[in-house]
Amino acid sequence: MTLPPLSRYLPILTWGRAYTRDTATADLVAAVIVTIMLIPQSLAYALLAGLPAEMGLYASILPLVAYAIFGSSRTLAVGPVAVVSLMTAAAIGQLGLSDPGDIALAAITLAFISGGILTLLGVLRLGFIANFLSHPVIAGFITASGVLIAASQLKHILGVDAEGETLIKLVPSLIAHLGQVNIPTLTIGAAATAFLFWVRKGLKPLLMSLGIPHKLAETGAKAGPVVAVVATTLAAWLFNLGDHGVKLVGEVPTGLPPLSAPSFDLTMWGALLLPAVLISIIGFVESVSVAQTLAARRRQRIDPDQELIGLGTSNLASSLSGGFPVTGGFSRSVVNFDAGAETPAAGAYTAVGIAVATLALTPLLFFLPKATLAATIIVAVLGLVDVSILKKTWIYNKVDFAAVAATIVLTLTLGVETGVSAGVLLSIFLHLYKTSKPHVAEVGLVPGTHHFRNIHRHKVDTLPHVLTLRVDESLYFVNARFLEEYVLNRVAECADLRHVVLMFPAVNDVDISALETLEELNTRLGEVNITLHLTEVKGPVMDRLKRSRFLDDLSGQVFLSQYDAWCALGPCPDDPRDDPIAAAP
Amino acid sequence: MTLPPLSRYLPILTWGRAYTRDTATADLVAAVIVTIMLIPQSLAYALLAGLPAEMGLYASILPLVAYAIFGSSRTLAVGPVAVVSLMTAAAIGQLGLSDPGDIALAAITLAFISGGILTLLGVLRLGFIANFLSHPVIAGFITASGVLIAASQLKHILGVDAEGETLIKLVPSLIAHLGQVNIPTLTIGAAATAFLFWVRKGLKPLLMSLGIPHKLAETGAKAGPVVAVVATTLAAWLFNLGDHGVKLVGEVPTGLPPLSAPSFDLTMWGALLLPAVLISIIGFVESVSVAQTLAARRRQRIDPDQELIGLGTSNLASSLSGGFPVTGGFSRSVVNFDAGAETPAAGAYTAVGIAVATLALTPLLFFLPKATLAATIIVAVLGLVDVSILKKTWIYNKVDFAAVAATIVLTLTLGVETGVSAGVLLSIFLHLYKTSKPHVAEVGLVPGTHHFRNIHRHKVDTLPHVLTLRVDESLYFVNARFLEEYVLNRVAECADLRHVVLMFPAVNDVDISALETLEELNTRLGEVNITLHLTEVKGPVMDRLKRSRFLDDLSGQVFLSQYDAWCALGPCPDDPRDDPIAAAP
Repeated sequence: MTLPPLSRYLPILTWGRAYTRDTATADLVAAVIVTIMLIPQSLAYALLAGLPAEMGLYASILPLVAYAIFGSSRTLAVGPVAVVSLMTAAAIGQLGLSDPGDIALAAITLAFISGGILTLLGVLRLGFIANFLSHPVIAGFITASGVLIAASQLKHILGVDAEGETLIKLVPSLIAHLGQVNIPTLTIGAAATAFLFWVRKGLKPLLMSLGIPHKLAETGAKAGPVVAVVATTLAAWLFNLGDHGVKLVGEVPTGLPPLSAPSFDLTMWGALLLPAVLISIIGFVESVSVAQTLAARRRQRIDPDQELIGLGTSNLASSLSGGFPVTGGFSRSVVNFDAGAETPAAGAYTAVGIAVATLALTPLLFFLPKATLAATIIVAVLGLVDVSILKKTWIYNKVDFAAVAATIVLTLTLGVETGVSAGVLLSIFLHLYKTSKPHVAEVGLVPGTHHFRNIHRHKVDTLPHVLTLRVDESLYFVNARFLEEYVLNRVAECADLRHVVLMFPAVNDVDISALETLEELNTRLGEVNITLHLTEVKGPVMDRLKRSRFLDDLSGQVFLSQYDAWCALGPCPDDPRDDPIAAAP
Repeated sequence: MTLPPLSRYLPILTWGRAYTRDTATADLVAAVIVTIMLIPQSLAYALLAGLPAEMGLYASILPLVAYAIFGSSRTLAVGPVAVVSLMTAAAIGQLGLSDPGDIALAAITLAFISGGILTLLGVLRLGFIANFLSHPVIAGFITASGVLIAASQLKHILGVDAEGETLIKLVPSLIAHLGQVNIPTLTIGAAATAFLFWVRKGLKPLLMSLGIPHKLAETGAKAGPVVAVVATTLAAWLFNLGDHGVKLVGEVPTGLPPLSAPSFDLTMWGALLLPAVLISIIGFVESVSVAQTLAARRRQRIDPDQELIGLGTSNLASSLSGGFPVTGGFSRSVVNFDAGAETPAAGAYTAVGIAVATLALTPLLFFLPKATLAATIIVAVLGLVDVSILKKTWIYNKVDFAAVAATIVLTLTLGVETGVSAGVLLSIFLHLYKTSKPHVAEVGLVPGTHHFRNIHRHKVDTLPHVLTLRVDESLYFVNARFLEEYVLNRVAECADLRHVVLMFPAVNDVDISALETLEELNTRLGEVNITLHLTEVKGPVMDRLKRSRFLDDLSGQVFLSQYDAWCALGPCPDDPRDDPIAAAP
C-alpha cells in the first residue's frame, strides 16, 4: 500500500502553488463582500443557537482559516448556519443548563465532538454514510427546520418570553404571552422584517432600473441586513430604546477570540454524542451539496471525503477559539462565488475581516436590538421552506412521500433530532420493503426474434413444460424467501412442468441468503422432478456463484442466453439466424 | 374490497372436511410417537427456561390444539423449543425476580405479548419482516445459542451453582465452582450424556443390523431420551440419590393446566416488549423454515401469514394455560412427518397424550434427576452448532462473513438479544453499503453485432465524443450521489465529450432522490454543453419517470435500445440487419 500524496489531504498545496496577484485581487474583493454579509449573520445565528453574540463572530474566524487549508471546495464559505444553529440550540437545551458559562462550554464541546466525528469520517473515507439521508428526508427536514426557526424568533420580534423547541410547545407558549407584547420591540422587529422582505424582492429591480449593473444590484441587495442593523442600532441609541423594554445585544467583549478547550465530562459527552452525529451529518450534507453545485458550474470537482476533513478541522478550530458548530452556508457561498472568489484564500481574508470587526466594531453592537437579528433570521430561513417536495413526491412515489411527510411532522412536533432520525430509519425501512417483493415476470419468446418479453404485456410463445421467470431485482436476504415462495407457488399451479428457468439479466448481486435459497429451490424442485436452469447471469454474479457448490449441484444448466435455453429445452424455431448474444466474445 | 373466505383464516375448515378414518389412524400413530418424545423435551426446555417442570407440559397441551385449528402446516409440531427457551430465560433473567410465582407470571406474560405480536403481524399480513433476518445472522445466532445452551446446562451435569447468561460470565462462574462438583450428579449426567450420544450415533445402525426396518429403527433411536429418563429416575429412587446431593425435579402438581392470565403491569411490559419481539421473530423464522421444508416434500404449500396466526394463537393459548413461549420445533416436526402424520389433528391428539401424562405420570417425575434433563438438552442442541457457515461465507462473500461472525461473537459475549439485534442491524447496514457503490461499466459495441459489452472485458468499438455507461444497480438515495460523482468525474477526464448515455437495463427502480440526482446531472452536463441520454429503460421505471418533469427537461433522448443510440449519435455501421430489440412489439 502506497500512501497518497500529502496534497490530497492539504488541497492548499495544490492551489497555493498557482496563486497569482490576479487571483489574490479576486479573492480580496469577494472577502470584503462576504465579511459585510457575515457580520450580522454570525450575530444572528449565535442568538438562534441561544449563545452570546460574540460566539457567532468567534465561529467565523479560525474555522474559515482551517477550511482554507483543508477544504477541497474553492468557493465554499463556512461559518454559523441556520439549521445547524437550531440543532445546536436543541442539543444544548436538553442539558438543562442555566449558567451562561456552562452553556458556552457545552457549545464549544459540541463543536469539538462534531469536528472530531467529521475528521474521523474523512480520514476513514466514510463520507458515503451521508448518503443514508435521502433527498425527501433532507428536504422535509430543512423545510420543517425553517418553520421551527422562524417560529422560535417570533418571541424576539414580539418582545415576549416564550419557551419550547417544538411547535406543540412553542405556539401555546407564544399565545400565552401575547398580552406582554412590547410595542417598541414589535415596531423595530416588524419594520426590520418588512424592510428585509422588500430588499429581497424589490431592491434588486429598483437598483437595476436606476441603471446599476445586474451583478452589483444583486450584491447590493445582499447588504440589506447590514442596513437594517445600522439603522435599528442608531434608532435604539437615539431613542434610548433599551429603557423602553427593547432587548439589546449589550456588552460584547472586544478582542480576538480566547483560546478555549472543550469539557471532557463523560455525562456531557454522552448527552451530546447523538446530537453531534446528527449535526455532523446534516451539516456535511448541506455543505457538500452547496460545494458540488458551485464546483460544477466551473467544471471543478470536490472530494467529499476531503470535505469531511475540511469541515471537521473547521469545527475543531471553532471549539478551540470559543465558537460553536459551523458548516458551509448556502447563501454566503453563493455570494462568495458570484463576487469572484477563486480560491479558499478568500475565506482566510474573510476571517481577517471578521477579526478586525471583533477588534473594532464590538462596542457599536451594544445598541443593536435582538429583534433586528430575529428579523434577519426569519427572512433568511423562510427561503428554506419549500413544501413543493410534498407535491412532487406525492405524484412520483407514495413511498418517498411517506418519508418526507413523516420527517416534516415529526420534526415540527417532536423536534429536530427525532425528526431527522425517524426520517432516516423510515426511508431505509421503506427501501427494504420495496425491494422485499421484487418484480418477477413470466416471459415468452417474441415470434421471429431472439427476444423474450413479459407474457402479460406482449404476444409471445411459451413452452407448456417450461416456466421462464425474469427476476427484476438483486437477490438478497430481504427478498430471497419471496422468490422461493413465488416459484414454489407457481410450480404447485402447473401440473406437467419439467423445467424452471430463471432469467438473471437484472440480478446484480446474489448474497449468501439468496444463494442458500437457490440451493433450497434446486433441491425442492429436484424432489418433484423439475429441473432448474439459469440464464443471462452477469459476469460478477457468475464469478461469485462459482465460489459455492451451487453450480455443481444445479440440476439444470446455466445458459448464456435465454434463447439458448429455449432451443435446448424445446423445439428450436425454424429461424436459422445466429444468436447474436451467444456470438459475442 | 371483498373479505377473504373464512377458510383462509381457519385452515381446519379445509382439511377437516376431507378427514377420513385412514387419515385419523395415521395421525394417531404419529401422535403417540411424538407424545413419547415430547414429554422429556418439554420438561427439559422448562428447566432451560428457568421454569418449573410442569410449565413445559402445560406449554405442550393447549398450544398444540390452537395450532391444529389455525396453523397452515400439516405436520408442524409446536411446543417448547431450545432457542426460544434460552431467549425466555434471558428475558426473564433481566427482570431480576426471585419469587417463583413472579417468574412464572413473567413467562406467561412473555408468551402473551409474543402471541399478540405474532397474531397481529399475521392479521396485518406483515410476515415479510421475518426476512430482515438474513441466513448468516440466523445461522450464526442458532450456532451461538447452541453453544450458550450447552454451557448453561453444564452446571446441572456437574451439580454446581453457576450463574450467567453469556460465556464471559458463565465460564468463570463454572470454573470458580469446580471444587463443589457433586460426584453422584456428575455420574448420572455423564452417563446420560454418553448414552444419548451413543443412541444418536450407534443405536440406529445396531437396530438395523438386528433386522429392524429402517423407519422403525430411526423412531426407536428417537426414544433414547425416554429410556434415559426412566433409567435415571429408577436409579435415583433405588439409591435415594436425592439425599446424596443429586437435584431432582421434585413435586410436580398433578392435573390439567390451570387457567392463567398475564400480568398487565406496564413496567413489566416495557421490559419484556423487545425480548418478545425478538422471540416472536426468531421463533417464526425457525418454525416457518421447518414447515416449508416439510410441506415441499409432499408438494404442499404453507401460508407464512397464516403461520403467524397459528403460532400467535398457540402462544396466546400457552399464556392462558400456564405455559411459556412456544414455536414449531425441528426434530419434533420431522418425527411427526416421518411417523406419517397427515393433518394438524395429529397435534391435537398429541395434546391429549400430554394431558394424560400430566394427569397420570407427574408423581413418577419426582425422582427424575435434573442432570438427565440437562443431558438431553446438551445432546439435542449440539446438533444446532454448525460452524460451516463461517467457512462458507468466508469463501463466498466477506460481507456475509462479517455478519455471521459478529452475530456469533456478540451472542456469546453479550447475550442473545444483543447478538441477534446487532446481527440484523449489521446485515442491513452492510447491504446498504454494498449497493452504495454500484457497478458501473463503460460499454462499447461488439463489432458485427447489436450488442454492447464492458470495454475492459471485451474488444469493442467506441465513439470518441460519446461516453456510454451501463448502471448495474437500482438507483436510490444511498447510491444516487455516487452515480452523479462518478459521471461528473468521468466527464472531467474526457475533453471532447458531447454525449453521455446511461444504459438502464438493470435499473429496477429510480426513487425520488435518484430522480433529483438525474435532474441535477442533466442540468450540470447541460452547463458544459454535454447532452444526457438514457437507453433500455424498463417499463415500470419509465412509467415512473413519466410522472416527473425529468423527461421534458432531458437534454437528450430516451432510446429503446443502446443500438438506436449508437446509430443516432454516431455513424451507423454498414451492417443492415434489423435491430431485433427495436423490432419487438
